[in-house]
Amino acid sequence: MANSKYAYVRNFELPDPLLPDTFMLFRLDGHSFHRFSDQHNFHKPNDVRALQLMDHAAKDVMEGYPDIVLAFGESDEFSFLLRRSTSLYNRRESKIVSTLTSLFTSSYVFHWPEYFRDHPLQYPPSFDGRIVLYPSEKHIRDYFAWRQADTHINNLYNTTFWALVQQGGQTTTGAHATLKGTFSKDKNEILFAKFGINYSNIDERFRKGSVLFREEIPMSEGEPTPQAPTPETATTADGTLAISESAAPLSEPLPTKETKPKKDKKRDNQPMTRIEIVHCDIIKDDFWNAHPKILTE
Amino acid sequence: MANSKYAYVRNFELPDPLLPDTFMLFRLDGHSFHRFSDQHNFHKPNDVRALQLMDHAAKDVMEGYPDIVLAFGESDEFSFLLRRSTSLYNRRESKIVSTLTSLFTSSYVFHWPEYFRDHPLQYPPSFDGRIVLYPSEKHIRDYFAWRQADTHINNLYNTTFWALVQQGGQTTTGAHATLKGTFSKDKNEILFAKFGINYSNIDERFRKGSVLFREEIPMSEGEPTPQAPTPETATTADGTLAISESAAPLSEPLPTKETKPKKDKKRDNQPMTRIEIVHCDIIKDDFWNAHPKILTE
Amino acid sequence: MANSKYAYVRNFELPDPLLPDTFMLFRLDGHSFHRFSDQHNFHKPNDVRALQLMDHAAKDVMEGYPDIVLAFGESDEFSFLLRRSTSLYNRRESKIVSTLTSLFTSSYVFHWPEYFRDHPLQYPPSFDGRIVLYPSEKHIRDYFAWRQADTHINNLYNTTFWALVQQGGQTTTGAHATLKGTFSKDKNEILFAKFGINYSNIDERFRKGSVLFREEIPMSEGEPTPQAPTPETATTADGTLAISESAAPLSEPLPTKETKPKKDKKRDNQPMTRIEIVHCDIIKDDFWNAHPKILTE
Amino acid sequence: MANSKYAYVRNFELPDPLLPDTFMLFRLDGHSFHRFSDQHNFHKPNDVRALQLMDHAAKDVMEGYPDIVLAFGESDEFSFLLRRSTSLYNRRESKIVSTLTSLFTSSYVFHWPEYFRDHPLQYPPSFDGRIVLYPSEKHIRDYFAWRQADTHINNLYNTTFWALVQQGGQTTTGAHATLKGTFSKDKNEILFAKFGINYSNIDERFRKGSVLFREEIPMSEGEPTPQAPTPETATTADGTLAISESAAPLSEPLPTKETKPKKDKKRDNQPMTRIEIVHCDIIKDDFWNAHPKILTE
Repeated sequence: MANSKYAYVRNFELPDPLLPDTFMLFRLDGHSFHRFSDQHNFHKPNDVRALQLMDHAAKDVMEGYPDIVLAFGESDEFSFLLRRSTSLYNRRESKIVSTLTSLFTSSYVFHWPEYFRDHPLQYPPSFDGRIVLYPSEKHIRDYFAWRQADTHINNLYNTTFWALVQQGGQTTTGAHATLKGTFSKDKNEILFAKFGINYSNIDERFRKGSVLFREEIPMSEGEPTPQAPTPETATTADGTLAISESAAPLSEPLPTKETKPKKDKKRDNQPMTRIEIVHCDIIKDDFWNAHPKILTE
Repeated sequence: MANSKYAYVRNFELPDPLLPDTFMLFRLDGHSFHRFSDQHNFHKPNDVRALQLMDHAAKDVMEGYPDIVLAFGESDEFSFLLRRSTSLYNRRESKIVSTLTSLFTSSYVFHWPEYFRDHPLQYPPSFDGRIVLYPSEKHIRDYFAWRQADTHINNLYNTTFWALVQQGGQTTTGAHATLKGTFSKDKNEILFAKFGINYSNIDERFRKGSVLFREEIPMSEGEPTPQAPTPETATTADGTLAISESAAPLSEPLPTKETKPKKDKKRDNQPMTRIEIVHCDIIKDDFWNAHPKILTE
Repeated sequence: MANSKYAYVRNFELPDPLLPDTFMLFRLDGHSFHRFSDQHNFHKPNDVRALQLMDHAAKDVMEGYPDIVLAFGESDEFSFLLRRSTSLYNRRESKIVSTLTSLFTSSYVFHWPEYFRDHPLQYPPSFDGRIVLYPSEKHIRDYFAWRQADTHINNLYNTTFWALVQQGGQTTTGAHATLKGTFSKDKNEILFAKFGINYSNIDERFRKGSVLFREEIPMSEGEPTPQAPTPETATTADGTLAISESAAPLSEPLPTKETKPKKDKKRDNQPMTRIEIVHCDIIKDDFWNAHPKILTE
Repeated sequence: MANSKYAYVRNFELPDPLLPDTFMLFRLDGHSFHRFSDQHNFHKPNDVRALQLMDHAAKDVMEGYPDIVLAFGESDEFSFLLRRSTSLYNRRESKIVSTLTSLFTSSYVFHWPEYFRDHPLQYPPSFDGRIVLYPSEKHIRDYFAWRQADTHINNLYNTTFWALVQQGGQTTTGAHATLKGTFSKDKNEILFAKFGINYSNIDERFRKGSVLFREEIPMSEGEPTPQAPTPETATTADGTLAISESAAPLSEPLPTKETKPKKDKKRDNQPMTRIEIVHCDIIKDDFWNAHPKILTE
């Protein structure tokens, strides 16, 4: 073979298997998304279109990879939990990290026009990803609690900050100064006293982030119409579309990716599932008690 | 802080720095591109639109990362060489692998409509990536020779195979049988004797793959019009657009990414460069002698 | 500094931390011990002196490293379990592997004359070591079950093999042939029928291997005489010394290493412990139920 | 098999191959040797017996591993260079690190009595080891220059410090204070002016460290008497034995390890070599020019 004398260079590629029987947490973050959100005029403090697009990309990743049992997203980040025993790509780290990051990115760019109808993408955005291993269920519970607590802290800050700027007329520098050293109750008080905003009435999506998990489809329901085909859409105050989360996106769903719930080919006797997107508490026990299969196999 | 008791989970993220002062070869491959190319009716044996789109995405990656000094692409794969001393992301493996794979993917989806005008993307494609380290210049020479020799072998096979099918009326099974056990000269002979094709006259793009590297821009030229702004485009026999390789793509170039050659901010006294795309031999010494800066610093 | 221009070479030393909160299993094996045991005329099928010396070295390692909570040895191998939360050497892999291997080796050579009184060491023996991580208690139970089952299988084979050779007059080749394809019950039958040996009466040390763990010392006992100072020794049939396992070795114990049970300086309120050596079953639950602190913290 | 249901635990042992065709530098350091040297009354500032014992252990390691082409030692540390292309243990990191550390330790304890005749070892010492990879010859040159420059700096400091204490009657605290902020020329001046010591006359062993490398044995010489069997020994001023470095140690050499130069079995047509121990400059080019095979293959 003409290239056999060069083929030795393959030997420099070293194995990178991840420890077996350990939870894999795949974490993805937007790259330079401060600049990206500015250039695309994301609404402040939260842009529902951008968040829904993130959710859509995350859902596509979960559709493509049945071993992902849970995902949580906020702002420009998403965390995916792969089940402990997954043998995806023989647990090769670079292969998993790069492929999942790639599919998320691809889906984000692909679905952009469905969420930003009149605002074409200006340049290709990118994300970075990494895998962190966790040995026990407790670590996983704490990881997701950490992200959701972070969502709360950031969102309360941002909500108050932008109220001070947009409604209170402060400069951004002034708003930062106002908030310096304040505690949660102070921010709640500012929102309520100055702007009549009850923080606990704000959309749960912003306060809790997005939680994606698989729900088994009862057989009778599952066969003919696996995914509720009647999106209830409504225009929100800011002109974006609010979609009921279990509904299809604005575009025609892709036949191969969307209409039928994915079955893991290797586990044919597994029940069919669909991916649910909710915005609920995942710090306390309720969610986990209601979905015991997420952490066990 | 509300989430401080969970923050310990960050300690599970382990460092993954790559050995210093060693060449990084970032390699990217299409994920399930056999299916992808079928669903998008890629021309056989080569689809110039698809190859130009790959080149465009590779160029975007090089524009974004000045430490990439060379890239080589064929089919659905691309290899990028980062200079030995790069400190990109402190040489963290997952960060580099995921970010480069993400940007390539993003650019591929973003620019798709420029190359497949009337053939919208059916679903989001993905790529996988990995980094291989090479200690010496010789390994790098041999790595690229390996990829280009592979390009030749694959293209000669595919060209002959599809001639047998498309022009010779063989089934795909029959064509594989015809080619079994043949050597290069046999395939050349089949092409010439049966189909009047002189293999060496076939587009160099198909026979050699794509080679991207940086060329310094002379100051007098560089300042006002850093990138040749007059693409010479022409419709080729198969209806696709052939672009002069140093020209801009069909779409309006993105102001921030395309019109001005990237300057590495950390190396302000470096000359400006632009990225050239050629289809030449990189196995023999000529190319390397003509561009000595690729391997040295 | 004269050497500052060279000090950059330190940057090539990469971090190698092991995943936190995961059991570390340090495994050590004799290097070329077939040759070593031949050259030192080890008794067949088991040499109690060699096994006691292994135990002694293992005990020294446990004395030096309070985070080792369990050890198991057979033949020329030893396995050490470090508690899940250990921060020994910041969990750096090479540091731990090399230091533990070194101390075991050192102790083995140092104590050799106590066990092989009239047989000086001919040349310096060596061992290799490695660390395997296990995420859960079940894996640890199964690891030790694996090693002890292996001990049983090997010892039954070796006992029968050497009976055939030493008492039955077979050649080693002949003995291997006799045993080929036999099951455990066949070997038990050969031992009993041909040589009057009831396998279950053989010294538990040979059948079960050595199990080392820490036992808390009641305060009243612990202060004045932490280690039972009255070794009951007896000459066995083969002329070697059988030591009651909780007793001191033949030599005068080293003041700094042996007489006082090690206290972990970082955990001053921990009870004092001494290391016990037993030869009991660790496959079933009894041992683990009796020593619940080995797997929990 | 009785233990087959547990054997899955082997899957947790992950591969750890080191990058091919890259220099491996194996570095070994004494563990808690400050305490060890105190307890064994090492002479200050240098104990020739301890240094010779280190050299002996290093030589044993080189005898056992023909792919080690160079070693350098000072104080309680030793560095070993493995040739770039070595396939020792398939370049598995833990295997190499642990085995080499073990053999060095074993040899150190084994040969102790030859160098510390009337001072028995009090307890088993240990060492730690690690491997650092270097891609190019320049890095290797700089690594060894770094260690030898360090030897010089440390030895000049220690020599002056102990002169102030032992001959000058200062306390150790006082001597440290005297030396604080001094440069090399200041220390040379103190040594000469106060104590009549010309630093450049001090034994090269102390100023340069120990350099071990392989020297080819001419065939006519090599066959009958591969190692010069006539040690020229002499008692030095401090009562220790100074051995001409190419001579045998005090004890009878081990037949299998010492008398015949090791031949690499895989490279039967290689010339026979013996290991030389010298104390020369390895920062400048002379040594490397005189022994070109150390860095090339």
